[in-house]
Amino acid sequence: MIAPKHPFELQTANPTGGDCSMPNSRRVYVNGELHPDIRIPFREISQSPTKNLRGELEPNEPIRVYDTSGPWGDPEFRGEVEQGLPPMRLEWIRARNDTTEYDGRTVRPQDNGYLSEQHSSVGRDRWARRPGTNSARKPRHASAGHPVTQMWYARQGIITPEMEFIAIRENLGRAQSQIANRKSQIPRNDLAFRHPGSEPIGSRQSAIDTRITPEFVRAEVARGRAIIPANINHPELEPMIIGRNFLVKINANIGNSAVASSIEEEVEKMRWATKWGADTVMDLSTGKNIHATREWIIRNSPVPIGTVPIYQALEKVGGRAEELTWEIYRDTLIEQAEQGVDYFTIHAGVLLRYVPLTANRMTGIVSRGGSIMAKWCLAHHQESFLYTKWDEICEIMAAYDVSFSIGDGLRPGSIADANDEAQFAELYTQGELTKRAWSHHVQVMNEGPGHVPMHLIRENMEKQLEWCDEAPFYTLGPLTTDIAPGYDHITSGIGAAMIGWYGCAMLCYVTPKEHLGLPNKDDVKTGVMTYKLAAHAADLAKGHPAAQYRDNAISKARFEFRWEDQFNLSLDPETARAFHDETLPQEGAKTAHFCSMCGPHFCSMKITEDVRKYAAEQGLSESEALEQGLQDKATEFQHAGAELYAKPYS
Amino acid sequence: MIAPKHPFELQTANPTGGDCSMPNSRRVYVNGELHPDIRIPFREISQSPTKNLRGELEPNEPIRVYDTSGPWGDPEFRGEVEQGLPPMRLEWIRARNDTTEYDGRTVRPQDNGYLSEQHSSVGRDRWARRPGTNSARKPRHASAGHPVTQMWYARQGIITPEMEFIAIRENLGRAQSQIANRKSQIPRNDLAFRHPGSEPIGSRQSAIDTRITPEFVRAEVARGRAIIPANINHPELEPMIIGRNFLVKINANIGNSAVASSIEEEVEKMRWATKWGADTVMDLSTGKNIHATREWIIRNSPVPIGTVPIYQALEKVGGRAEELTWEIYRDTLIEQAEQGVDYFTIHAGVLLRYVPLTANRMTGIVSRGGSIMAKWCLAHHQESFLYTKWDEICEIMAAYDVSFSIGDGLRPGSIADANDEAQFAELYTQGELTKRAWSHHVQVMNEGPGHVPMHLIRENMEKQLEWCDEAPFYTLGPLTTDIAPGYDHITSGIGAAMIGWYGCAMLCYVTPKEHLGLPNKDDVKTGVMTYKLAAHAADLAKGHPAAQYRDNAISKARFEFRWEDQFNLSLDPETARAFHDETLPQEGAKTAHFCSMCGPHFCSMKITEDVRKYAAEQGLSESEALEQGLQDKATEFQHAGAELYAKPYS
Repeated sequence: MIAPKHPFELQTANPTGGDCSMPNSRRVYVNGELHPDIRIPFREISQSPTKNLRGELEPNEPIRVYDTSGPWGDPEFRGEVEQGLPPMRLEWIRARNDTTEYDGRTVRPQDNGYLSEQHSSVGRDRWARRPGTNSARKPRHASAGHPVTQMWYARQGIITPEMEFIAIRENLGRAQSQIANRKSQIPRNDLAFRHPGSEPIGSRQSAIDTRITPEFVRAEVARGRAIIPANINHPELEPMIIGRNFLVKINANIGNSAVASSIEEEVEKMRWATKWGADTVMDLSTGKNIHATREWIIRNSPVPIGTVPIYQALEKVGGRAEELTWEIYRDTLIEQAEQGVDYFTIHAGVLLRYVPLTANRMTGIVSRGGSIMAKWCLAHHQESFLYTKWDEICEIMAAYDVSFSIGDGLRPGSIADANDEAQFAELYTQGELTKRAWSHHVQVMNEGPGHVPMHLIRENMEKQLEWCDEAPFYTLGPLTTDIAPGYDHITSGIGAAMIGWYGCAMLCYVTPKEHLGLPNKDDVKTGVMTYKLAAHAADLAKGHPAAQYRDNAISKARFEFRWEDQFNLSLDPETARAFHDETLPQEGAKTAHFCSMCGPHFCSMKITEDVRKYAAEQGLSESEALEQGLQDKATEFQHAGAELYAKPYS
Repeated sequence: MIAPKHPFELQTANPTGGDCSMPNSRRVYVNGELHPDIRIPFREISQSPTKNLRGELEPNEPIRVYDTSGPWGDPEFRGEVEQGLPPMRLEWIRARNDTTEYDGRTVRPQDNGYLSEQHSSVGRDRWARRPGTNSARKPRHASAGHPVTQMWYARQGIITPEMEFIAIRENLGRAQSQIANRKSQIPRNDLAFRHPGSEPIGSRQSAIDTRITPEFVRAEVARGRAIIPANINHPELEPMIIGRNFLVKINANIGNSAVASSIEEEVEKMRWATKWGADTVMDLSTGKNIHATREWIIRNSPVPIGTVPIYQALEKVGGRAEELTWEIYRDTLIEQAEQGVDYFTIHAGVLLRYVPLTANRMTGIVSRGGSIMAKWCLAHHQESFLYTKWDEICEIMAAYDVSFSIGDGLRPGSIADANDEAQFAELYTQGELTKRAWSHHVQVMNEGPGHVPMHLIRENMEKQLEWCDEAPFYTLGPLTTDIAPGYDHITSGIGAAMIGWYGCAMLCYVTPKEHLGLPNKDDVKTGVMTYKLAAHAADLAKGHPAAQYRDNAISKARFEFRWEDQFNLSLDPETARAFHDETLPQEGAKTAHFCSMCGPHFCSMKITEDVRKYAAEQGLSESEALEQGLQDKATEFQHAGAELYAKPYS
């Protein structure tokens, strides 16, 4: 099951090996069953043993966690950024025998924001080259007369290597045989996890759901309820899935702008974000070197990359929205599809007739893509070409397996504008576009808001499920108040956790710099951490079977004063350790049976040991209770409750 | 209406005047109507004018915000910590003519954790003295044969100055006459704000509710649905209310422990926490100098102070829980009531028979108070004296108007233990104790968890409302996952916002150091900020009429590129400004019509101006739309929705 040696031959040392390694962790790989040659990566965190009341040592199993860091997180990996990652999926794609390489579009100076080859050369540095290993790379497109999307394969009944990879990944690498031996304790109806309206059930489950099988993955993709963003020109990608019957995913935005940042920084931000758990990354670059920045990011990214192609198209016409044309936009789509972008945000739901609905808003149109298209529509008094050319766009998407992320260009930019006419009009049109894309076998998710107070969040999810026929929802936050710039990772983390629970499939992170400036590396980490915990809170609330085991492990470690294990099992071990050491820096304090909150003299956790001794004396032995089953006990309590409490003044 | 000159004669300069002032803000006072001598403080933030499309300047009204900083936030105030704050309420209390001063209990070395006077003198420094202005202060207690609680007055139909103070404070100082002129746009049923089950309504309301009158405050207190924690020995306090039909409040915990911190630091933390918006402060000190620390905090605190008296009682018996006695505990209650503590956390719901219910938990008993009492019960095989002596405790509370915060000693310390038998057994008993306290006319709130996944939060609120007969709920978080130590202000901020929306009246903050160490000043601020935004998000979701106006003001400023106003209106102006300046430090960038996210070349907000021009040309003039009424428009949209969307492919 474990294959620590990396199969790819790589020449140079991994420059960030140390940086990407997490404490007490090792990289493990699990092989596929349907596709024995696929290898799914995980991080496994080892724990120290528990010292029980009799002084005996009881081992604690290592904890396996989902790992988005790709080869960069494998200490054995010896690649470097200038080479790009190994094209893991290339053989899978070739084996399908339905695509061919071709010469592709020639990169022009304008793609990087320069007027001519001469201007372009001014901006040249080592980044102007394509990453090394792929310098001879030719793009690939569909050639067998049918779409090459995961949806198309799913609808043909084909379980692709990508699908099996995902099933094993979502099950944290437990083999199907292991899964069969572990009974899920979650009574679930059909495909959906429990949702807010359903009965609360016991919260102690830790078994793995038997349902996340390769066949389940296929069925969800075929139905359009989940997508696997995986451009055939991004073979470096490790497949992942976005859908509400899977783990909630998070996206991190990066990207330079005219005022700040370099290519090098953006690549580093991508690696940094995926180290901490970003499931996809959007490159929102504007200004110069858009094409080159993207090339470097994609060649080095183990996660799907999303873009907003209209940003680059706008650069090509000097920033004048009214000069945009379908031809320039189409050329940009092909340019980016050939590079390997996995999903495109396209604001095709911003219709001419919806634009005036925003005129009396508190904050008008705050989406950049939405504003560009609104301006174009107004300038030409015509319907958006994104909308009128939708079928042609779908054909491009189908030829490369680029997924749609249908943009919400009219999302509310303030609490006052939440759930208004303009917003829901566009959402309705997103639903129509979704179904048209599905008829082309193109994968689709829908983008959502924005700024929404808590009591209006659920309506967003319900309307999206209904109007977009359960296509995955992908929201920015939402921010639950406008009054805390500097803390909008938190105002939005609240909304994100809630909408994730309600069924949102992916949460687009917000950093502390939202509304104020561009995020630096620390901000990216803070944003990712906030959204990881929000997504996990949603997974717990949904009852995802691969969620609570980690809470249980860290809580057990905490209760047993295994400080090192508590740090190592947490989302951010280095911060947890640093915070602890601020108050109690001595090494001994990390094994002491007390903590800095109460001091050495008295500790509530210590007293609990006495309670257990007492309970054991009283005949309620631990083994007895465990035998009886905690689940049964809880049920019994519910029934006996009335009697138990009958005489509170006894 | 505005009385900027401070009425108290103070000798020395306010050492933190500069620190406590917020940008573009001034302190204003509003006088009472029923009690014309009372003065309610607010902070008023001035704004720059809007430059409209025709280049004209339109003024923006100053925004008034609730201010918890007390005299420390008044630049005219000239007091200093060693003197304590002026006893604003003293005359109100005297005028009731139902209390007398008496000599009170003698402070003993043991109160500060010393074995004898000799040991005590080792610990002496300037803090060992009582704060100056109150060195001659004698405690006061009830002397007219009836309780002196706000609940008792409320039940007699008396509107105290405290109640009117609160009504004006909750209405942000709008006079009753002004309120009468502004029609509330919120259709509310009876007393409750809208709650999650109710229909979503328009989110544009900004009018002030007419219901938060002095009489409404009185009625809520009489009913037990709200409390005014205000010990007659804490005359420095500015009255505030805790109840679900008022603004959601937050508490900040401070307190030294055996391993860290000094009195000076704790007083500074209190001032710091109230500067940023803490509505109450709990002093959770353990170890040495408990009595002296508390004295300094209370004398300088404009907000109610809460404690957990069992902590000090435990210190008096050398940390040995089994040596606690009712007499020692009772003496501690009186000691603290004489000092002016406004609410006591008492874990009287931890009954002997509930203790074994925790034996098989993932994390046993994590509450310190709960652990102490569990240990006592087990050691003596007797019911808790907190429970058996409840009526005597109530009599003490009634004589000083100390409010109960009935502790949740068996709260879950992990996701695995949420909503279990032990937790709900105690909550049920909290309900019984609540009703018994009410029969003594003592004010009560109930403490709640803890660690609870999102889908189990609501059950906590519902059971509390039912079993505790709508007494205010006061929860710690709850934390929605266990896996993010270092970020537990956020894991808990999510739960706090949600339970605030569901009806929780006060949220006890959690800092980033939770589970790891003691918070420093930065952590206190981060915790307060996180909980302020969570409480505000809850106020928005509840539809509190005094909430959204601030979101609207900041969003308008943001949309109009009034950067300075955006900073100044935010919860944390200095952080917002610093984040902005990291990317665009030049002064000019704060007035530029672009922001660092998009650069000077293109900006979505700028485009929206064009949309407005277009919409105006198209005949949907702004004035027309405004005349029609946004509320009407939203309703119309709901009805016309089907037709509007009938032909999405038009």
